[in-house]
Amino acid sequence: MAKLLRINMTDLSAKFEDLPEKYKHLAGRALTSTIIYDEVDPTCHPLGPNNKVVLAPGIVTGTNAPTSGRVSVGTKSPLTGGIKETNAGSEWPQRLARLGIRGVIIEGYPKEPGKFWLIHISKDGVKFEPADEYVGKGLYEVYPKLFERYGRKIGIMGIGVAGEMRMATAGVCFNDIEGRPSRYSGRGGAGAVLGSKGVKFIIVDDEGGPGVEIANPDLFEQGRKKLLEALRSHDITKPKGALNTYGTAVLVNILNEAGAYPTRNFREGRFEGAPKTSGEAIFENNKKRLGKELYNHACHPGCVIQCSNTYYDEQGKEIVSCIEYESTWALGANCGIDNLDAIGKLIWLCNDLGIDTIEIGGTIAVAMDAGLLPFGDWQGAIRLLDEEVRKGTPLGRIIGNGAAFTGKAFGWNRVPGVKGQNMPAYEPRAVKGIGVTYATSTMGADHTSGYTIAPEILSVGGKADPRDVRKAELSRNFQAATAFIDSTGHCLFIAFAILDIPSGYEGLVEECNGVLGTNWTVEDSNKYGLEVLKKERLFNEAAGFTKAHDRMPEFMKYEPLPPHNVVWDVPDEELDKVYAF
Amino acid sequence: MAKLLRINMTDLSAKFEDLPEKYKHLAGRALTSTIIYDEVDPTCHPLGPNNKVVLAPGIVTGTNAPTSGRVSVGTKSPLTGGIKETNAGSEWPQRLARLGIRGVIIEGYPKEPGKFWLIHISKDGVKFEPADEYVGKGLYEVYPKLFERYGRKIGIMGIGVAGEMRMATAGVCFNDIEGRPSRYSGRGGAGAVLGSKGVKFIIVDDEGGPGVEIANPDLFEQGRKKLLEALRSHDITKPKGALNTYGTAVLVNILNEAGAYPTRNFREGRFEGAPKTSGEAIFENNKKRLGKELYNHACHPGCVIQCSNTYYDEQGKEIVSCIEYESTWALGANCGIDNLDAIGKLIWLCNDLGIDTIEIGGTIAVAMDAGLLPFGDWQGAIRLLDEEVRKGTPLGRIIGNGAAFTGKAFGWNRVPGVKGQNMPAYEPRAVKGIGVTYATSTMGADHTSGYTIAPEILSVGGKADPRDVRKAELSRNFQAATAFIDSTGHCLFIAFAILDIPSGYEGLVEECNGVLGTNWTVEDSNKYGLEVLKKERLFNEAAGFTKAHDRMPEFMKYEPLPPHNVVWDVPDEELDKVYAF
Repeated sequence: MAKLLRINMTDLSAKFEDLPEKYKHLAGRALTSTIIYDEVDPTCHPLGPNNKVVLAPGIVTGTNAPTSGRVSVGTKSPLTGGIKETNAGSEWPQRLARLGIRGVIIEGYPKEPGKFWLIHISKDGVKFEPADEYVGKGLYEVYPKLFERYGRKIGIMGIGVAGEMRMATAGVCFNDIEGRPSRYSGRGGAGAVLGSKGVKFIIVDDEGGPGVEIANPDLFEQGRKKLLEALRSHDITKPKGALNTYGTAVLVNILNEAGAYPTRNFREGRFEGAPKTSGEAIFENNKKRLGKELYNHACHPGCVIQCSNTYYDEQGKEIVSCIEYESTWALGANCGIDNLDAIGKLIWLCNDLGIDTIEIGGTIAVAMDAGLLPFGDWQGAIRLLDEEVRKGTPLGRIIGNGAAFTGKAFGWNRVPGVKGQNMPAYEPRAVKGIGVTYATSTMGADHTSGYTIAPEILSVGGKADPRDVRKAELSRNFQAATAFIDSTGHCLFIAFAILDIPSGYEGLVEECNGVLGTNWTVEDSNKYGLEVLKKERLFNEAAGFTKAHDRMPEFMKYEPLPPHNVVWDVPDEELDKVYAF
Repeated sequence: MAKLLRINMTDLSAKFEDLPEKYKHLAGRALTSTIIYDEVDPTCHPLGPNNKVVLAPGIVTGTNAPTSGRVSVGTKSPLTGGIKETNAGSEWPQRLARLGIRGVIIEGYPKEPGKFWLIHISKDGVKFEPADEYVGKGLYEVYPKLFERYGRKIGIMGIGVAGEMRMATAGVCFNDIEGRPSRYSGRGGAGAVLGSKGVKFIIVDDEGGPGVEIANPDLFEQGRKKLLEALRSHDITKPKGALNTYGTAVLVNILNEAGAYPTRNFREGRFEGAPKTSGEAIFENNKKRLGKELYNHACHPGCVIQCSNTYYDEQGKEIVSCIEYESTWALGANCGIDNLDAIGKLIWLCNDLGIDTIEIGGTIAVAMDAGLLPFGDWQGAIRLLDEEVRKGTPLGRIIGNGAAFTGKAFGWNRVPGVKGQNMPAYEPRAVKGIGVTYATSTMGADHTSGYTIAPEILSVGGKADPRDVRKAELSRNFQAATAFIDSTGHCLFIAFAILDIPSGYEGLVEECNGVLGTNWTVEDSNKYGLEVLKKERLFNEAAGFTKAHDRMPEFMKYEPLPPHNVVWDVPDEELDKVYAF
């Protein structure tokens, strides 16, 4: 029977608890959101002693289910003030799950502020070691040292200097398949909450662990094969398919073409530098620079989609892995930067400092809009991260706390966020459904919480007119399906395949039934997702959120977006329907 | 019939409107809050084009009613995100009222950002003049120039560099009786809203104005005399009484004795430097330095309380006027500073920059608590204001945006505020009623919105045990009475006298009846106040405020306050009763 591991940072104690009966079908996001809902006072200070952080692998994480190495990190967000689930793909949760641990709860508050700890979890139990020697350093310097010290067969969760300084852009960093500090539960500042608790690293060594208990191995295997087949046959997810070839940045030209690629702090919907900063450009530059075609790799063992790219400079030296669509957008178009090498360097800096690329790109864009530096000034952007944020200068603390904060610092009202979280790489004025998700998601503006871009732009899972304002039901359905997928431990990208291939969706549900011994239908999985959303929503309501927080930034209602000159025109009533269930 | 003056900053137009029938009994706070409620979208960005600022003299302002030169400034606050009414005493509203103007509404948004205007109002109409030559300068340099240019018989409203930079601590500055830029509608950042609209000054020249219409002069005169008599006989408000001798800072030793004088960012309730920074110390230092006893003066013509002090240095040169209780506390005890001359210099800097002493003192205290500089470092505090805020450096922009903002910048959870506004000079853990007001006021933490200190500490208006947690009714009564007084145009300090002397209260109501031709009773005045509160509350609800925002900062619930080691223990249910009417 899987356990919960409760770690108290006040007295540096750890205790294994039986998974309560009521949690037995919960994992991933369902588990983190439920524990935060059950145990955290929604009015607590996010950086105070009463907040908690929960880390949870998904239902099938740690098994050989394809593309299932996701971890959910849950907390009360210092960025939004609401509940947060932010997830990443890494071997870390796979190892945790194989130790028989369904979730880790971090609570308490350090007696000695400013002291940081490394927590080591193995079959022999939990050890706390001082992390002083790693504090204040870049993660690219530190992760190799940790692998050297604890062996390669571990997973590392860590926070960077941004988390140490409790900045609201601070993410939670997991190692990628080659040990890089590059897979992020980035959004919402969970890294700052860990920083406030003195947690610098959690190392998981699963050697000798019991593995994931599977109630019905045959059913699991049946489901796994169906899902695998779907992933291998869909154009987006198949080997040498769109994601494997161009990475997520394959979206750049598509969204740009649609006039929905937010440019220069959401002043325009099309960026003249898009082709130079796209997934195709990454592929072509690599080909030229390395003299061969380079296909992408997995972020964790067992992923069949394999969308992680590595980007090389003219000398054939690695600049960074990986350049995601949202990252090339955030630090590219949104800042008016069309230099892909510079964008790569900026992403590397984010990874090194432990910050969310989406929020920080949005932040730099707001600062540029407000006049701190000109759009396109990539040298200035590098300086902001490498000097100001890294050293925690006053300007670094402004930038490090995100776009809404930076807007306020400069008295600037063009801040394209919802609930304090900046919008990602899809213009809601041009694609209404994603705007409905931004406005109503329990997470703040977040594309991953209800990716209606699939039917609105990609013709995946049906087709929807991007300009049609009636998107409440579509967004709700996507939000619910996502909440379920985020609980299974699968990467959200399986959605491309299972939305178009029904047997893939069945396979997903059968996998879960196989592990948990349940007999859910596809319909049940939707209800499961809705239950997760309901708890998150209740937490947010108790934290003080109302319908007034489910609204788009005002400027989008009166400022038309070129090239299509569209404003945000979804009626408030449509927004209020999303959570009326 | 009084008029409304509507000024549009988009096209620099001004238009006089008849006072709508439904507004005919509204003035001061009742008028500003009603117009903000009626005309401003509660979800608008405070610094965007759709916010407005309303300035309104009270019902009797401009008449010879004693102590009645108050102006209400209403807006959606960039500090709290809710409705704001912040008032000051000055000749400015008296002159405005004598021009027959009940309120000025500022709306629109400058076409040329960064351009500032001087608005000149006289019987001949409204003129717009470029204010460029005054931008970026200290108000102590600028106000004398304006008097030189426009004559001494004017009132000046202005914003300082903090307002120009749209900082959330920016107040609205009115001249005092000797022309100093020192009477502030300080709280809530209304200066930033004016800054966002390009309004630098509003000058009022009432020469040849019609004066205030008085419907029933005899009744007015009868009320005026009763109120005058009460003010002249009460120990707190009479000539050479407590306020006239020691100023509001007479409270320092009283609150300190009660263990309710917040010290070093609300870490303690008693300050060892209190006697050195009290009203008595101001009086004694002046006596020693000037060789004579100096009693206080009025902040506007016609005030009989006359509580404004002027503080002199060892050479007999003026340091500043005036050192209020909340200012000596904010920049003294709360920052661990016991040097009264330095406190005087800090207040002068606030006046010069155009910032709220209470919020900025709380901000510096939070920064000190978070480790930016040590408690007691008055040289550092001066540097923060005179160099960082004045120049708008990144650190200046952090500090200039207030305590909650600064707490967030430094990842610090000990921020003693409610709804984003820092608490003033009364410790809610030691005096529960004022805490109930802080928590529930529509204004954020604000002592002036329901001053239960009167019965809890001063034995004025009855007696109440400061530790008794049942304070909902007391706070509501004080909040309602205050909302009425803030609408009459009287200074809140008349409350000391009228709470103890019933004929004074009657006189107040008769004065209003005399001006408006109404026949209100004392009971009606309470209902009037409740109506104002109701509108403010509705605005805040629509802006997204819930009961979760009517709560004290979490640390006060678990951190006992020396010397009495009390925590915040008023049940949430008690807080929720305040607005259950």
